[in-house]
Amino acid sequence: MKNLMNTPQTIVDDALAGMAAVHPSLQLDAEHRVIHRAHPKKEGLVGIISGGGSGHEPLHAGFVGEGMLDAACSGEVFTSPVPDQIMAAAKHADRGAGVLFIVKNYTGDVMNFEMAAELAAAESDIEIETVVIADDVAVEDSTFTAGRRGVGATVLVEKIAGAAAERGDSLQQVAEIARRAAEASRSMGMALTSVTVPANGKPSFDLPSDEVEIGIGIHGEPGRHREKLTSAAEITRTLMDPLLAELPGEGGVLLFVNGMGATPLLELYVVAKEAAAVLGEAGIPLQRSLVGDYITSLDMAGCSITLLRLDDDLADLWDAPASTPGLTMGGSR
Amino acid sequence: MKNLMNTPQTIVDDALAGMAAVHPSLQLDAEHRVIHRAHPKKEGLVGIISGGGSGHEPLHAGFVGEGMLDAACSGEVFTSPVPDQIMAAAKHADRGAGVLFIVKNYTGDVMNFEMAAELAAAESDIEIETVVIADDVAVEDSTFTAGRRGVGATVLVEKIAGAAAERGDSLQQVAEIARRAAEASRSMGMALTSVTVPANGKPSFDLPSDEVEIGIGIHGEPGRHREKLTSAAEITRTLMDPLLAELPGEGGVLLFVNGMGATPLLELYVVAKEAAAVLGEAGIPLQRSLVGDYITSLDMAGCSITLLRLDDDLADLWDAPASTPGLTMGGSR
Repeated sequence: MKNLMNTPQTIVDDALAGMAAVHPSLQLDAEHRVIHRAHPKKEGLVGIISGGGSGHEPLHAGFVGEGMLDAACSGEVFTSPVPDQIMAAAKHADRGAGVLFIVKNYTGDVMNFEMAAELAAAESDIEIETVVIADDVAVEDSTFTAGRRGVGATVLVEKIAGAAAERGDSLQQVAEIARRAAEASRSMGMALTSVTVPANGKPSFDLPSDEVEIGIGIHGEPGRHREKLTSAAEITRTLMDPLLAELPGEGGVLLFVNGMGATPLLELYVVAKEAAAVLGEAGIPLQRSLVGDYITSLDMAGCSITLLRLDDDLADLWDAPASTPGLTMGGSR
Repeated sequence: MKNLMNTPQTIVDDALAGMAAVHPSLQLDAEHRVIHRAHPKKEGLVGIISGGGSGHEPLHAGFVGEGMLDAACSGEVFTSPVPDQIMAAAKHADRGAGVLFIVKNYTGDVMNFEMAAELAAAESDIEIETVVIADDVAVEDSTFTAGRRGVGATVLVEKIAGAAAERGDSLQQVAEIARRAAEASRSMGMALTSVTVPANGKPSFDLPSDEVEIGIGIHGEPGRHREKLTSAAEITRTLMDPLLAELPGEGGVLLFVNGMGATPLLELYVVAKEAAAVLGEAGIPLQRSLVGDYITSLDMAGCSITLLRLDDDLADLWDAPASTPGLTMGGSR
């Protein structure tokens, strides 16, 4: 395995330092591995933080900026940040109206964010709400998870909740919208290759050269089954069928085709074509889309598909301006 | 080699259909493999097109939209589009004020865009200007190139020229600015792994597991030399030293750290940190930056660095709003 790094021990700190060095909109609290806005939002607006293990970039630190997060804290690769880091992120994000924690449903993350919320209650007057993202329909419980894993919906919730905070919604309102977006989302992923954690230097699992894993997790956790590599049309349908079976509500959707890291964008657009065709057959209007690498698993090849059932408010919040290194919206519209 | 595709023969058409299916701002002229704006810019503004072989996504079709290109035509993977396609793109882009061709310096592309310009003169009244991008300092002449290859500067020129056209500059002015940006740019890349063309199904070259290739081309063309995989700090310096030696002018720069396709963003930010440090040592102000996968080589792991010496006008044009699937700027500023 080959990495562009100095050492496995410094890769996270070096990358965070790189983000702060090249993006003047971001500042690094190096002690706590927190990336926060260089120019905080105005007083009286709700703060939003997220965080988790590194290795999923641009999630989460790449989504710090206007219209999305106020701060994000990074653990080691595939390892939750600890409560002190989360508490530091909350302090950077706090503008006097409370702070929303956006947490992916992995046992370590949920526990550490809960402890940070308790710390906040005990040691500060920052009011905290938490939304836990659990959108992955592939499996119930998993290597690091009780219940369903949190995956692609996290990106969408960070965008939507960020827009709600920016327009002046209260903490309870922002939390309600974040939960509504999370509950309206379903995801499933697949892998063509394993992921290699830099500190390990070898693939986390073996996948034969003619097979794919359906329902893979973003840390290489096992999915539903393995099957022979077939066409993009067949693989896309294998991902879309359970999403459509479980998607709540009615009406149009946001389609998010996410790359796991090593899959060319050319291929992601082939999947997007097939996913749009499946939606068309099902009579579901494709109202918004996002295609690219947004929640990755280091060097894994593969993709995930997320569907979010939109209502007018969620669509407006999705369309609102945002300006972050990882996702920018609303340029000249 | 594993790809998410239906067949190697359909991967380009499927991906273009996917782009048009999910991005309402884009339309596909499938006969000519041209992606163009669904809502053309207003009459009297200069049109801008680009194009080239597929496999470098989001370049070029992903940069069609407000503030960048009006149309882009796609050849087969790593194969130039033909004059008829380029002429079709020019017609989609023409708003009565002429069309700029942005061409990467590969023999096939240069020849086909020249023939298209001759076609335009003979068969239409569309005035054409051409800028040829040749920013890669790694080698003089290469597998598909006389002179220097065109790489990362292409992304920057498409953004800058697009902004000049949008503000109402004449064809000669837009062409002059595009040439100025191209001439103020220098790039060099490196590979950790080979690239695999889907139709071939095997890596284009062999690279030992402990070596990197310095000066690689975006089609896997040979670079300057191979060396042992060392630290990101050392590799970054190996790329930066020749860029700084050849960079014209004085003052601040735009730093563009580009992923070749399969390298995690975490690693690109490590390179960004090291590149910023080299600039700091050299006393060169880092004024703008871009980090991510913008001009790729399918599944190659590696990166390239581009430096663009800025002046006030180039910086303003870089900062101008843009809204394309591959690059959006100016969200909420």
